[in-house]
Amino acid sequence: MPDLTAVKQALREQRIETPSWAYANSGTRFKVFGQPGVPRTPEEKIADAATVHRFTGVAPTVALHIPWDRVDDYAALSKYARDLGVEIGAINTNVFQDEDYKLGSVTNPDPRIRRKATDHLVDAVSIMDETGSRDLKLWFSDGINYPGQDDLRDRQDRLAAALRVAYDRLGPDQRILLEYKLFEPAFYATDVPDWGTSYAHCLELGDKATVCIDTGHHAPGTNIEFIVAFLLRAGKLGAFDFNSRFYADDDLMAGAADPFQLFRIMYEIVRGDALGPGIAFMLDQCHNIEAKIPAIIRSVMNIQEATAKALLVDRDALRTAQREGDVLAANAVLMDAYNTDVRPLLAELREDAGLDPDPVAAYHRSGYQQQIVADRAGGAQAGWGA
Amino acid sequence: MPDLTAVKQALREQRIETPSWAYANSGTRFKVFGQPGVPRTPEEKIADAATVHRFTGVAPTVALHIPWDRVDDYAALSKYARDLGVEIGAINTNVFQDEDYKLGSVTNPDPRIRRKATDHLVDAVSIMDETGSRDLKLWFSDGINYPGQDDLRDRQDRLAAALRVAYDRLGPDQRILLEYKLFEPAFYATDVPDWGTSYAHCLELGDKATVCIDTGHHAPGTNIEFIVAFLLRAGKLGAFDFNSRFYADDDLMAGAADPFQLFRIMYEIVRGDALGPGIAFMLDQCHNIEAKIPAIIRSVMNIQEATAKALLVDRDALRTAQREGDVLAANAVLMDAYNTDVRPLLAELREDAGLDPDPVAAYHRSGYQQQIVADRAGGAQAGWGA
Amino acid sequence: MPDLTAVKQALREQRIETPSWAYANSGTRFKVFGQPGVPRTPEEKIADAATVHRFTGVAPTVALHIPWDRVDDYAALSKYARDLGVEIGAINTNVFQDEDYKLGSVTNPDPRIRRKATDHLVDAVSIMDETGSRDLKLWFSDGINYPGQDDLRDRQDRLAAALRVAYDRLGPDQRILLEYKLFEPAFYATDVPDWGTSYAHCLELGDKATVCIDTGHHAPGTNIEFIVAFLLRAGKLGAFDFNSRFYADDDLMAGAADPFQLFRIMYEIVRGDALGPGIAFMLDQCHNIEAKIPAIIRSVMNIQEATAKALLVDRDALRTAQREGDVLAANAVLMDAYNTDVRPLLAELREDAGLDPDPVAAYHRSGYQQQIVADRAGGAQAGWGA
Amino acid sequence: MPDLTAVKQALREQRIETPSWAYANSGTRFKVFGQPGVPRTPEEKIADAATVHRFTGVAPTVALHIPWDRVDDYAALSKYARDLGVEIGAINTNVFQDEDYKLGSVTNPDPRIRRKATDHLVDAVSIMDETGSRDLKLWFSDGINYPGQDDLRDRQDRLAAALRVAYDRLGPDQRILLEYKLFEPAFYATDVPDWGTSYAHCLELGDKATVCIDTGHHAPGTNIEFIVAFLLRAGKLGAFDFNSRFYADDDLMAGAADPFQLFRIMYEIVRGDALGPGIAFMLDQCHNIEAKIPAIIRSVMNIQEATAKALLVDRDALRTAQREGDVLAANAVLMDAYNTDVRPLLAELREDAGLDPDPVAAYHRSGYQQQIVADRAGGAQAGWGA
Repeated sequence: MPDLTAVKQALREQRIETPSWAYANSGTRFKVFGQPGVPRTPEEKIADAATVHRFTGVAPTVALHIPWDRVDDYAALSKYARDLGVEIGAINTNVFQDEDYKLGSVTNPDPRIRRKATDHLVDAVSIMDETGSRDLKLWFSDGINYPGQDDLRDRQDRLAAALRVAYDRLGPDQRILLEYKLFEPAFYATDVPDWGTSYAHCLELGDKATVCIDTGHHAPGTNIEFIVAFLLRAGKLGAFDFNSRFYADDDLMAGAADPFQLFRIMYEIVRGDALGPGIAFMLDQCHNIEAKIPAIIRSVMNIQEATAKALLVDRDALRTAQREGDVLAANAVLMDAYNTDVRPLLAELREDAGLDPDPVAAYHRSGYQQQIVADRAGGAQAGWGA
Repeated sequence: MPDLTAVKQALREQRIETPSWAYANSGTRFKVFGQPGVPRTPEEKIADAATVHRFTGVAPTVALHIPWDRVDDYAALSKYARDLGVEIGAINTNVFQDEDYKLGSVTNPDPRIRRKATDHLVDAVSIMDETGSRDLKLWFSDGINYPGQDDLRDRQDRLAAALRVAYDRLGPDQRILLEYKLFEPAFYATDVPDWGTSYAHCLELGDKATVCIDTGHHAPGTNIEFIVAFLLRAGKLGAFDFNSRFYADDDLMAGAADPFQLFRIMYEIVRGDALGPGIAFMLDQCHNIEAKIPAIIRSVMNIQEATAKALLVDRDALRTAQREGDVLAANAVLMDAYNTDVRPLLAELREDAGLDPDPVAAYHRSGYQQQIVADRAGGAQAGWGA
Repeated sequence: MPDLTAVKQALREQRIETPSWAYANSGTRFKVFGQPGVPRTPEEKIADAATVHRFTGVAPTVALHIPWDRVDDYAALSKYARDLGVEIGAINTNVFQDEDYKLGSVTNPDPRIRRKATDHLVDAVSIMDETGSRDLKLWFSDGINYPGQDDLRDRQDRLAAALRVAYDRLGPDQRILLEYKLFEPAFYATDVPDWGTSYAHCLELGDKATVCIDTGHHAPGTNIEFIVAFLLRAGKLGAFDFNSRFYADDDLMAGAADPFQLFRIMYEIVRGDALGPGIAFMLDQCHNIEAKIPAIIRSVMNIQEATAKALLVDRDALRTAQREGDVLAANAVLMDAYNTDVRPLLAELREDAGLDPDPVAAYHRSGYQQQIVADRAGGAQAGWGA
Repeated sequence: MPDLTAVKQALREQRIETPSWAYANSGTRFKVFGQPGVPRTPEEKIADAATVHRFTGVAPTVALHIPWDRVDDYAALSKYARDLGVEIGAINTNVFQDEDYKLGSVTNPDPRIRRKATDHLVDAVSIMDETGSRDLKLWFSDGINYPGQDDLRDRQDRLAAALRVAYDRLGPDQRILLEYKLFEPAFYATDVPDWGTSYAHCLELGDKATVCIDTGHHAPGTNIEFIVAFLLRAGKLGAFDFNSRFYADDDLMAGAADPFQLFRIMYEIVRGDALGPGIAFMLDQCHNIEAKIPAIIRSVMNIQEATAKALLVDRDALRTAQREGDVLAANAVLMDAYNTDVRPLLAELREDAGLDPDPVAAYHRSGYQQQIVADRAGGAQAGWGA
């Protein structure tokens, strides 16, 4: 049986980063439904993130998205965050919402647009210098909608060239997280469709480039925990964008669609001794119809619960059953942990840390929601396209 | 061998309806890229549709989308269309872009919102009375994002009730086309996810309710031509929304992603003797990055080509091989037709009809594009969210 | 909160049918790995099923597969089963392993083969008369591998004709369970690919024909619990073939691949008040590499656990949250039940019933496995192709 | 426009390898249907392969599968092949049909079994020495069916170790082709599930290890031509196993399910200047219900047709349109080639080479089929499990 003290310690040290944009409005191509109280500025997003941290105790950083979170003074923004008890985390670039990027950014056939996009990546590193961020997260919407539209291989050359420029700009303690995605918004081919593509580019770039796994960016049936195990073995897993999905990149709350999968992923993390800060555990979700802050709190809790279950796996018993080829016994060891109700354990940990054992209920009682609805009455709500 | 005269006659009589909204701006949840010359009014959309008909000769009707195409005087709009050489086709309802519809329209848990949505359906029939439209196309974005969010079965009851109200409002020559869709914008369950659900409701409603197949709305691996054959046999196929996809509801040009599938679908239509006006052959696409009017012309041509190939199948030879259980021979008969280059045949038909044999080239030479770019300079471009 | 007495009563009354063939050898197209102790006769399969019932208390019937379980005297076989404490359940037909069925059985282009297949269905009803079975389960491997190979619509006509013959042969208390399957062994089109097709045929046949849902027979992304809810509402759900899958029809242990999905399915059963005998809850699995009897015990327990969680859903609280449109609260009510560890409750129920609280451990201690390994040394092991 | 002389020359030089096992019986897990005239020995398989080459002129090599094609004297077998006009091609290993391999071969938790499997790989290289084969094709059915069954990462270590042993045994002109497969026969995780895994191992091994793409081994929606383009750019594409599929690893005739996809794949080959001998173009199919030799002839022809269309792409026009960002024009250039009927061109090429322009018809007229049916009356037909 796992040592409960160690389990608790690991859970106490767990860190989950929330994304500034998840506090803002989002939607589908059909409609963005606004919600009262949604932030209008980067500062208000950070305030919401700090609130999530206040109730969960494990979300001490917030990722920014440039240009959605562009400000004049990033040092001041960092200080603002720290005053609220959180830090700025990863810097996410956006090279998909400018009119120039209709046919791609760093892989665009037009060299002028490629240069503009690459400049944006480099600028983002400058922002990192100011915020003290370690991670530059790169997701490219680049791809093509129709066979023949552009040359698949030329686009890889262009991608490699742009990545090289950004990589060479990194400081000694900075790194690139290269995300991949099967499709959307490109509908025939994307330029970084799968982990293999991201891995290959990261390998070519060097030690400071690692793969970011967004749990919603795979083909149906993909075994994500295999990818986790593989990349950990190769030393190339840098980050997660957690969310969940039934169909495509649905961006539902982490753990909502397939909690067993989330547990299996976290088991590979625990097995690979990778719960520490080397890997950025981030959320990347859209709360289109549900209340945003409670949804993020719930997502954080879902990851905590999956982690607790993963830590409770009796690894000695598991190894024994695996080595003996006892299929059912080995599976049963894993399922025993999964079937455990870890909510009391997590409630206890929260109370030990001076937190309310039920963060969602505490949030609702806190009056924060009513406060932001009242305070954020005028102005334009932030959103994906802000 | 099929009788070439009959093949040509069938191709001459083919009718494909284009959708007003495909001429307007569209995009993904990440970004809508505008295009110069995009229509600003229902009239301008109709003008574009008339242009497509002018160059293809087989697209004499245009579907409207309410409220995107709301006007004060539908009779005047009809006359405007007729003056340009086209007619108003199906009326599409929209119960997904009002703030009230965040949790559903006709299946919303709130009876007030259900009533509002149902009223909209009934109003659409009134518009049909004015435009002389036969078809009321119903697509509901209704569904839920999270397990437990609402009761799946209650929602079916609500759906049935709303459909009944709309059905009872239909005139003697009007009918309902009930579309289904696996997912998006709902990400856990939709209320009409598949043809079986649509079929069951249509059966319950009566003879004036039929199924509409959108070729992009299925789970991966779904055999669409089977559904076509099945519904034709059951007398319940009412319409197509043509488009194509590699992944989800990508809404690419019809025939662009899997021309062989489009051929197989058209073969079932030909085999079921259903090329005539009983079934509405409509496009429903998004031209996010490509020029809209030429994309629609190309889509119309792709359907024509698939139809020509389907008509060229040597059905006697096919039947003989099928009855003899000669797998390879039967497959070869089908493939012979598919592998035929039918573009010369269609070019000939166009010339016989006084059209340019190459509609895309003719469009580009016509100056229409330059004209609309110049004319439609001010004002707000129409779009999905218009 | 649900009434715990009622929950326990429902769990006590739950019945799960195990399939004779799951005790026999099975495998993939690549290899069938034999296991020591596997039954050689229908009687030995029944003995294994009785053993599963002895340890679980909720598996009192065993389904037969004809011709794999063909015997001269079915009345004697029934008595043999009863003497061991179980009853014969559904009769499964097999029209896919005779050389004649290479191109199909009831939908074969050759009328002689269709007649042979239909005769087999009718014969199966005669066996039901002898065994006292209520359910005739029909799964047709019929389909085609290549476009054009046979006429999709003709095959529906042939299918309907054969089903009619079998239906008309049913006694007053007998019924047809019509299974559907997306693909395999047919790789282009199957003749009953989805629930819609099965439903439509059942509707045409009459009240004694209902749909059987095999949880492994759907396209990726299909929402199975929606189908459950829909068919319950329509009064057309007759049975389940439980198993689980990550990719295709993997036939893994029920609940092994997606325990949350199994819970959602069982929730719709509970919500539809359908846990009783009207629906046949059957397993249909392949234990290719794991020990068969313990795997079946585990599967039965997995279904029990999912059912217990479904029964524990606070339906009043759920309905309130749903009506109020509180997405997160409604989801949380469902997840609260899912996250509960119900193993102690089920252990208690077993002890109340005089069973060992841990059926798998009790089985291993019982010596039954060693006994059958010793006893069943000679002869040919039963298998799918037996 | 492409130079027609060069197109013809490329088509004349194209080489497609057929697999010995495709001439033998195969089936699904449900049933293997035998066919009259199926080979009983490796020699008879080679004779069939030589027949395919005789009628197509482009299939001069045949791949062997060990132990299915085990003989005492491989030099004699090679001579036998050469006498019939063909050569022995790739050697395929089989570490999935021995009882020992139930839980894996090179990744088995038991070191004794791992050694046995690795020895088999090494032995296969010895066979290659005798046959003069260049390519050692490795497909591992290794994987697990249940979460927890074995440790994903340990299995990677074991895989890497076994590959290293085999790699080190290679002669200077020999190489490893490492195949990947998403699932089947393992149903939860396979040890080489995707191209990324294969690529990473090949990279680690060295220059003589390259990836083999089986066109049926991907998750739904995977863009295979992207993988082709990527691996060509990386210099790591070694071979294809061609076949086609609608759902899973259906192993239908190449080009039968999605001829447009096959064309797109071949276009990337042409664009990457890779039609030559550096890449092994092999078939890997199962002709479960159709006549085997004509099915293989048809598959070879389908690949020829796709290649011809790919060669006919006007690459200058394509590049221009791509560089200009003209989405529709670029797509149209590709589609122009695809829509061309290349059968007359290929018929002409065959006649130039002294072959019948219609290989399938010529085969049927040749009397070969009647001959083998008569000659191969007794004995055991070869099959997958032979």
